[in-house]
Parts: sequence; C-alpha cells; structure tokens
Amino acid sequence: MGTKYQDDSLALHTDLYQINMAESYWADGVHKRKSVFELYFRKLPFGNGYAIFAGLERALDYLKNFHFTESDIAYLREELGYGEDFLSYLQEVRFTGTVYSMAEGELAFGNEPIMRIEAPLIEAQLIETALLNIVNFQTLIATKASRIKQVIKDEVGMEFGTRRAQEMDAALWGARASIIGGFESTSNVRAGKRFNIPVSGTHAHALVQAYKNDYDAFHAYAKRHRNCVFLVDTYNTLKSGVPSAIKVAKELGDKINFVGIRLDSGDIAFLSKEARRMLDEAGFPNAKIIVSNDLDEYTILNLKAQGAKVDMWGIGTKLITAYDQPALGAVYKIVSIENKDGVMEDTIKISANAEKVTTPGLKKVYRIIDRVTGKSEGDYITMEDEQPEKEERIKMFHPVHTFVSKFVTNFEAKNLHVKVIEDGEIIYQNPELMDIRQYAKNNLELLWDEYKRSLNPEEYPVDLSQKCWDNKMRNINEAREMVEKLERL
Amino acid sequence: MGTKYQDDSLALHTDLYQINMAESYWADGVHKRKSVFELYFRKLPFGNGYAIFAGLERALDYLKNFHFTESDIAYLREELGYGEDFLSYLQEVRFTGTVYSMAEGELAFGNEPIMRIEAPLIEAQLIETALLNIVNFQTLIATKASRIKQVIKDEVGMEFGTRRAQEMDAALWGARASIIGGFESTSNVRAGKRFNIPVSGTHAHALVQAYKNDYDAFHAYAKRHRNCVFLVDTYNTLKSGVPSAIKVAKELGDKINFVGIRLDSGDIAFLSKEARRMLDEAGFPNAKIIVSNDLDEYTILNLKAQGAKVDMWGIGTKLITAYDQPALGAVYKIVSIENKDGVMEDTIKISANAEKVTTPGLKKVYRIIDRVTGKSEGDYITMEDEQPEKEERIKMFHPVHTFVSKFVTNFEAKNLHVKVIEDGEIIYQNPELMDIRQYAKNNLELLWDEYKRSLNPEEYPVDLSQKCWDNKMRNINEAREMVEKLERL
Repeated sequence: MGTKYQDDSLALHTDLYQINMAESYWADGVHKRKSVFELYFRKLPFGNGYAIFAGLERALDYLKNFHFTESDIAYLREELGYGEDFLSYLQEVRFTGTVYSMAEGELAFGNEPIMRIEAPLIEAQLIETALLNIVNFQTLIATKASRIKQVIKDEVGMEFGTRRAQEMDAALWGARASIIGGFESTSNVRAGKRFNIPVSGTHAHALVQAYKNDYDAFHAYAKRHRNCVFLVDTYNTLKSGVPSAIKVAKELGDKINFVGIRLDSGDIAFLSKEARRMLDEAGFPNAKIIVSNDLDEYTILNLKAQGAKVDMWGIGTKLITAYDQPALGAVYKIVSIENKDGVMEDTIKISANAEKVTTPGLKKVYRIIDRVTGKSEGDYITMEDEQPEKEERIKMFHPVHTFVSKFVTNFEAKNLHVKVIEDGEIIYQNPELMDIRQYAKNNLELLWDEYKRSLNPEEYPVDLSQKCWDNKMRNINEAREMVEKLERL
Repeated sequence: MGTKYQDDSLALHTDLYQINMAESYWADGVHKRKSVFELYFRKLPFGNGYAIFAGLERALDYLKNFHFTESDIAYLREELGYGEDFLSYLQEVRFTGTVYSMAEGELAFGNEPIMRIEAPLIEAQLIETALLNIVNFQTLIATKASRIKQVIKDEVGMEFGTRRAQEMDAALWGARASIIGGFESTSNVRAGKRFNIPVSGTHAHALVQAYKNDYDAFHAYAKRHRNCVFLVDTYNTLKSGVPSAIKVAKELGDKINFVGIRLDSGDIAFLSKEARRMLDEAGFPNAKIIVSNDLDEYTILNLKAQGAKVDMWGIGTKLITAYDQPALGAVYKIVSIENKDGVMEDTIKISANAEKVTTPGLKKVYRIIDRVTGKSEGDYITMEDEQPEKEERIKMFHPVHTFVSKFVTNFEAKNLHVKVIEDGEIIYQNPELMDIRQYAKNNLELLWDEYKRSLNPEEYPVDLSQKCWDNKMRNINEAREMVEKLERL
C-alpha cells in the first residue's frame, strides 16, 4: 500500500475533475457564487414502477465531516502539483450550504429532484461524486429489496449477500438498504450492530462436513443453540438431511426449539414440497422451510407458481449487487447560479441525447394524493415559488407527450422535500431504521397496484407544472440561440 | 444510526451463522482442530477466458487486525444473547493460521484453489465471509478491467466509475483492481492518494454551465490549468464545443498545453471522426480525443470497427460495477480436518448440483509452461505431496470429460501458491501496485491468444492430477455409502 499519506479522509473521495474545477472557480473568483444543484435519476431501475430513496443518513454524515485533512493537502501538493495559494484556501473549505432532500424510504421516480443542494459553487462541486456514490447504491438496493418483497409478500425476506457484495461498504449499507426496502433481517452481524437490524442465520455446510454427517452435526449444533434451523443439503437432502433433522428434533424435543430446515441447492420446488410432506408426517407441521440459492424475484415467482412450500427466503447475490442492473444512473446537475450582479440565473445542459437535457431553475416536487381514493395521482414538479397545496385544481401533463394531460381536484399536495441542512448545520434527525422501513411501506400504500407490478408496470406520472415547462422551453431556446450566434461568427 | 455500539471493527463483518458455528465448535471442544479451507470460484466471469486475482493486500490487512472489540462482544452479549463463557473465549481469538495464496495479478481459472487457509476450525470459519467479500469483488473488477483492456489495446484506459460504484469501498478498491487489470489511471483522488495510482480528469459540464458558454468556460479553465482537455458536448459538440476548444487553444498557444477534447454523449463514432477532422484542419493533429459515456468492451469493439478516432477511453459504470456480471461466485470450502486422534482427514461436500461437489484434500496448483513455446499448457492441481516440477512427463486430463487428455513433457511447473501468512504472522511483502500490474501483464503473455478472445474464448485446461482425481472419487464413494447406510437404518 502507498504508505506515504496515512489517513483516509473522504474529502478526496471524488473525481479529480471536481478539484480542477474548484481551482478554476477559485482562481476566477466565482467559487463563492451561490449555486443550486439537483440530484436525480432519469430512469427507474429493473423496469420497476418506482424506486425507494435511501442514502440520506450516510450523505449527511459525509457532509458534516467534509474537510481536507493535512495529508489530503500534502498529497495534492506533492503528487498532483496544485499551487500553495489554492491549497491554503482548500484547507479551510467546509460544507456551508443548505440541502433539501426526500426522506429515506420516500418513493422516488425518474427526473424529479431527490435532493437539492444550494451552496457556494466550489462546495457544491466538491461533494458531487461522493453524494452520487452513496445515493446511487443505497437507492438501488432499497428498490431491489422492495421489488423482491412485492413477490415474497408476507413471507420473510432475509438479506444473505455479504460474501458476494461489491466490497465491504456495499455489504454493510446494502444490508441497511434492504431493510428499508422491506426485508426482515440481514446475515451481516456488523450491520446488525451498527444499525440495530435483526440478524439471522444458523449454520453452513462446513459444520456438517466437519462432523462428516448430518446427524452428528445437527446434534452438536443443537447442543448449544435454541431456535434451530438445520441445513439439510450437504450430502443428500431427502435421504440424509431432512431425516436427520427430524430425528434430532424428535430426540431433543423441547430442549431445542426446532424452527425448521434450510435448502441451499437442488430443485427448490420439488425438494421443498417433499420436505414439507416429510416434516408434516413426522409431526412438525409448524416447522419452517427456508430456502436460498441464487434467488431473485423471477425465480421466486416461478417457484411459487409451481407450489413450492417456502416460509422464508434468503436472498444473496441478486439482491446485494442488484444483479440485473447493478447501477442506478443518478446524476447531479446545476440548475441555477448567481451571476456577477448577485442575481440567480437558470442554467441548462443541452445534449444530443434528448433525455440528458436538464430542467433548469429552483424546483420543488409534490406528490398529488387524491383525497377520495387516498391514492397518488402522480408527482408534480413546480418552480420554487409555486404553491400547489393552495390550488383548487392543477393540470398535470406528460413532460414529453404534452397532449397527455389531466386536471386534478380535491387533492393533497405533499411537498417531498425536507430541509435537512441549513447553512451547513444538520437540522434533521435521522429516524430509526425500522421507522424508515415502515415509512416506505406506508408510501407504497399510496400507489395503485398497477405501478407495483414487477413486469411491465404502468408508468407513474411525473409531470412539470406549466410554469416549470415554460421555463425549460425558454432556456432551451436561449441556449439554441447562443449556439446559432456562435455559428454565425 | 444505532449509536449504542460505537466502534465499527471488521470482526463482525461476517454472516451470523459463522458465529453460531464458532459457538458450536467451541462448546463441543472441536474448535481448535486443524482445518484446511480453499477459496476458489467455479466459473469464469463475463464468459472471459481467464480471471485476474486481486484482493490479497486487503485480505492480509483484515487477517492481521482480526479481533473482536469490546463493543463487538457487548453487542453479541446484549443484543444476540450469546453466553458469557463463549464470549470470554471469543474475545481472545486472533488469526493464528497459515495461508497460501496466489499473488495479486496472477491469472486464475475455475475450480483451482486461489487461497488455502490452514487454521484452527473456529478461526478459519470466522474469516470466511469477509475474505470472500474482498476477493470476489476485487478479482471481478481486475478481470473486467483486463477484459476491456484487451479491446482498448495500446490506447489509454481510465477508470471513471466512482459515482456509480456500489458504495465507497467499491469505488476505492475497484479503482485499484482496475489498475491491476491494466488500466492506466483512475479519477478517484482518494485511490490515487492511498495506492499511488495516477489520477486523471479535467472538468465537467457544470463548469461550462456555470460560465454559460463553452468559450468562456474553457478560458477560465485554461487560466489556471496546463495539459488542458476540454469537454465539448455541453451545448453542441460540433457547432460550439470543438470550435471553442480550438479557438482557446489557438489564442493561448503554448501557455496551455492543449491535450485535447472529451466527448461524453451523442454518437461517438460520428462525432469523434468529425472532431478529428476539425482538430487536424485547425493544426492540432496531436490533440487527443477522449471519450466516455457508458462504454464497455462491446461498445468499444463496435466503435473501433466503425473507425472511431479515439485515443483515450474513460470507462465508468460498466467497469466499476462489472455491469454484465456484478458478482463473482467464489466460495470457501473445507477440504480437510483433524479428527479426534489428531489425524488430518479429507472432507467432501456432495450436492445435487454436480458442479458444487468439492475436491477434497490439501492441494497445490501449478501452471504448466512449455519450455519451447513459453506458453502455458494449462493448470495442474495436485495433492500436497506431489512434485510435478520434478517429473519428466505428466498426464493432463479434463476433470469432467476424463478421456480428453494429453501428455506434457519439457515443461516448467510453476507453483502458484505463495505462503503469505505463517502461524498468524504475515511473511509476505505486498508489491507496489504498478509492479502487480506489470506482473498481470507478464502473466497474460503466457496465454495463447485463443484464451484471451473476449467472445467465446477456448477453455483453458484446469486439470486434476491422477492422484487428486482418484482421491476425489474415493471420497465421493465414501459419502455415497454413508448416505446409503443411513437409508437402510
């Protein structure tokens, strides 16, 4: 390991270009201009109908502690050659901005601001990469967990993925995100300790191999543990594993609380049905059948369709890595900046990829809830100065196919942004994890079932207010004129 | 955050069942029996013809520091209810075993022991999850990077993925693994500081948006920076971005060292060719064209086939998450354990999934290199007491299709295992990262091109010695007899 720079602060957990830009802003004297950035993703992951926002707790912790250490500065000086003048300034930088954010467990959709950062340009820029790194992953996993939980329904979902996670932070924060998404427990003990999450797990094949047969291994395990779950597929599930589990359960009776068995290989549909029959016949109708082995929402749907007898699902790889789409593409875009006269001006990014064009200006996002059905009619993005909660009737229209529109009346407009940091001070108290989990669950109640289907859900409306849309069009036209003017030069 | 248990040691970064098994072993008095575990994966990722092992440095650090802190013990006591007797013991546990491992940068293939852990049963068990977590991810990313680098060839590969990585550790260690796999640099400054990796990057769209046009932004950037690369796609690549870059480069001449431009959206094949033409015509034939935008080895192959003019490739999401296969399935299996008489005995795990059957016993793995061609003939797994390096001729045969065989003579047998920890003491000096990268590169020279093809490579032979194969069959038969005996009861 490069041992020259000992500490490992997170201020340098950023892309080099952020520091280069910071230097340019500083050298040009524009670094303190007030700027507004929005963090959002464009497209829902997994073809899911919604996402569940997670990552705020970690993001707040990062922002609170943001500063360059002496060794950070030494590295920038000695290895990257930044000038002393800039480094002296950088050493003093802290995060002094104001942040609005959705709460963890909030439902989030494409192209709506999940977080809004208002800060001096240099600060807002320096924190971009780490914020995205945190929010992208945690939101992805919370969403994947929720998606799997939709299929598991009332059975128990256990996160088992640490060994296949993308390094340690992913295992730890992924376990937490899985709980937010509706899972009941994790196998990761560190996550249990750190976040007060229920932990679960019994024993592995190695225990059975160490004793060379199921029966002796289960006995040894039961000697010290109650609430026993025996892993039955080390040698032969139906000939050795299940019979040995039943034998030990009968012999030790009430001394152990025989919870059930776990299957980790072979055909889960067939084996679970056979095991269920054997357990029932042996007088253990309440014994649980727990399964694991590369499961995801698709396999679970199929196993259930085949009548698999499963009570608890252990989900590893496919959950903790979000296997079928291992990255959420959240971005962080500047929407407004102070000009030299101290006036805030909108900014826009045009792109040859139409979906990459940004929506300029300070915005808020509301969930429009029908007071009669109690269900959400869609999300509604407004300019900062609009107050849809005070309006009688709003027009919601599709931001691309603008002729698709509807009028909504008798609604509640819930502002999804919470002010979490004010002038650098955290003013938000993170809820307990289990309360965040409950909040996500309650939020899902607001959604019609068609948005929660795992295959081909309906598209949930995320609409711009008329004012917001007009403003975007005006900015697009201005940018276009600017380019055309350049061409004529 | 659960604030009750303040520190965050890594001893609990494990699955709960490991601690349950540890307790069982301890309660039964078998916890100190010498055991041997092997860490290996079954199947190469991405359909690639080889993998590149990474993760040893982090694994050694983890093993060196392995111990349960007071707050770990308090958590296990207060929240999970483990007994005081067991906890007193656990508090004293350190890793005292011996570890053989491939060096980082070694080529690894399916079903061969990458690491071999010899330790008291309880220790070997407690470290499993974290070891897998580390090795699975880092090996996956080093392999993906190498796979992409095969396509990039002599052009420059830059790792740009932090914002899309699966949390912070993945960004950090993934950057390192990318270098091992052959990339030239990372954008992650923390990785640059910690591992002494070259870092790269210039500026983002936000800079251009902050100045509202390309020209002013590039000027502001060039005021403070040399070796300028301008991002040209904020408003309009060919009408505004590239012309502005050329204008600034001409105006400032030698004062900035104009390196080139970066394209981050639109059709890279078309835009790069047009931009190349414009740069050449403007008198900048040496200006580089750098591209990024969701690239992977498939897109790069296609872009090259269409004659894209690219000098440097910035690869983000698809590399840092190993997008098309975000988990390597390495496992950790017990192959031998001391019996009550102090004699080591082989163990095996049988499975309904044939590929999950383990290969029992203490083993070594050799790379068989033809002295004439200098190329590798395959890997050869032997029992501990075999010495293929002293043999004149060895028979290599396919471990499944055993009739596929060849005799090899005039070879060098390179033992791929290095003893890295002896009785708990680390006796291995981690090489400098750039030396590991070079080692991986040299190793690839040993492979015939057919194993390095990105699509449908030939299967590289990983064969068992006759002795190893006979031993496996004997163990399978014994396990089968054990099950049959149970059935007759």
